[in-house]
Amino acid sequence: MIRALVGAGVTEEGAWIQSEVLLEAELRGLASHGLMRLPRLIERIANGVADPKVTGSHQWLRSTFLEVDGQAGLGPVVAMAALSQVRKRAAECGSAIAAIRNSNHLGMLGYYAENVAEQGQTLIGLSTSEALVHPWGGRTAMLGTNPIAIGLPTESGAFVVDTATSIVSMGKIHDHAQRGEPIPDHWALDEDGNPTTDPVRAKNGSIAPFGEAKGYALGLAIELLVGNLAQAALGRDVRGTLDSTETCNKGDVFIVIDGPAGQLAPYLEQLRQTPPADGFDAVRIPGDRSKSLRSERMHDGLPVEDRVWAQIRQLAEVGHDQPSPRRPM
Amino acid sequence: MIRALVGAGVTEEGAWIQSEVLLEAELRGLASHGLMRLPRLIERIANGVADPKVTGSHQWLRSTFLEVDGQAGLGPVVAMAALSQVRKRAAECGSAIAAIRNSNHLGMLGYYAENVAEQGQTLIGLSTSEALVHPWGGRTAMLGTNPIAIGLPTESGAFVVDTATSIVSMGKIHDHAQRGEPIPDHWALDEDGNPTTDPVRAKNGSIAPFGEAKGYALGLAIELLVGNLAQAALGRDVRGTLDSTETCNKGDVFIVIDGPAGQLAPYLEQLRQTPPADGFDAVRIPGDRSKSLRSERMHDGLPVEDRVWAQIRQLAEVGHDQPSPRRPM
Repeated sequence: MIRALVGAGVTEEGAWIQSEVLLEAELRGLASHGLMRLPRLIERIANGVADPKVTGSHQWLRSTFLEVDGQAGLGPVVAMAALSQVRKRAAECGSAIAAIRNSNHLGMLGYYAENVAEQGQTLIGLSTSEALVHPWGGRTAMLGTNPIAIGLPTESGAFVVDTATSIVSMGKIHDHAQRGEPIPDHWALDEDGNPTTDPVRAKNGSIAPFGEAKGYALGLAIELLVGNLAQAALGRDVRGTLDSTETCNKGDVFIVIDGPAGQLAPYLEQLRQTPPADGFDAVRIPGDRSKSLRSERMHDGLPVEDRVWAQIRQLAEVGHDQPSPRRPM
Repeated sequence: MIRALVGAGVTEEGAWIQSEVLLEAELRGLASHGLMRLPRLIERIANGVADPKVTGSHQWLRSTFLEVDGQAGLGPVVAMAALSQVRKRAAECGSAIAAIRNSNHLGMLGYYAENVAEQGQTLIGLSTSEALVHPWGGRTAMLGTNPIAIGLPTESGAFVVDTATSIVSMGKIHDHAQRGEPIPDHWALDEDGNPTTDPVRAKNGSIAPFGEAKGYALGLAIELLVGNLAQAALGRDVRGTLDSTETCNKGDVFIVIDGPAGQLAPYLEQLRQTPPADGFDAVRIPGDRSKSLRSERMHDGLPVEDRVWAQIRQLAEVGHDQPSPRRPM
């Protein structure tokens, strides 16, 4: 991945950041945000809608509000540059916010939440994306999958929640389509706005918000909050998060808080000890499953689809005359 | 209500704030957070677990992080005093946070979101409460109904989302119990942790999180974030949000952001024009229904349950020698 990105013109540091975000998603079983994203990214660079060199331009509108013009840079590169500034400011001031526009897809939002939480601060991360989700009671896609991630420090490490406000990801619907498996009838609508169990029809339709009216309300609040603060596009005007030819005009908002930390571990342990309901073997803390999958894969190796691996190897050929990738520090 | 509160020792300004929060909930059809809460509040004052005079003590831990000890004051009085400081600080710095402990129940969280949004700022409000909600896959109540409210300015007024992270409120289950109506089987578990359609059994059991695992994750993130920043109690240790005898040890966190505002109205209008799904007459913006109910009631009058009205009149007798209530400015 590093070779492929450096070959496409990305700085060595940028290539490391971008690769790590994709790899961490893949390690956690979030294949839709993993290695399969690399070819599209490199296409976007080739098509001039992702700039491989920039890290975003920063302007402090007020002492704790950072306006970031991503300059069409790679999402993770722009985000990490912004976070490094707002984390520092939050350490001084107690809180600080970055509102990012004109930047490419962030990848897994939880990555940033974990990064900030591991360093003892709290992150609320919000991001918008192309309209794939229908409003509750509506027939057509009008909202992004608009994830929210919350990361905070606990005595036993970072606690991270990272959830889209759609009931499933479009990636999961594509998976079902590829395997020829039907989807549950409350996941999606077809092109005409009718419920469907056919994943192929759902791909051209819209996904349901999670949690009915409540999840719709939350997804819409994220759309509007990010739209305002990041001066980003809204709803069906959002482009460049799925395609490889359009400028990405969604927004991202990071709220970093540097405040007191309490004793959370005993409560988390009580939660794990809650008697499980029928059909469950245990009560889980969000992140338990992905953490244990990550450890397993770090130990046993990471299974990667042949097709994806072949694409990455081929893209890396372009960079074969680059120096062997070593982590810059 | 003012007479009853002033009679119980509340300052005139405090009585206005507390009454307005209850009245605004009642006007919007949120009876569970409305006038019926007054008698319990006055009991709490009489029992010494709510202090009718204080507004909370403030300490800026950093320039944009306000630590508030509510001194067992009335929730809305402490909250409005804290918000007035963080709103001012956010106007200077771009963002500011209040973390409130040792304060009584806030009432409807959306009230504060609307108040801040009407003044051109963005609020994210988070609050915890006594454990009524079971973790996804668990049998017993381990989390509060932990609401999140988001308010932000639009050209057509405040946009407000205010949602508990439980699938319904315990108030709604009590309503069903009172009317002898069954509840849907996915709302709640009975005392033994089994699904029930009997609202009476559900009252002693636990409510489901909204949106299954995702809503549980979000509710837990709120529990932990507020627990950390407000140094508040967690899970089954939370007391004083439902009873009338125990000190209230939950927490509240307000994040106020003063940032750019964009053009949201055209998108909101597009949303309203989305073709409705079967069984819906229109796509709604969150808050549409409660706003229209409020207008209707401001015009036609507010229906109040006889029992609730009789209680308020009786409580107001205590204050009958107080001056006629006039709004302090």
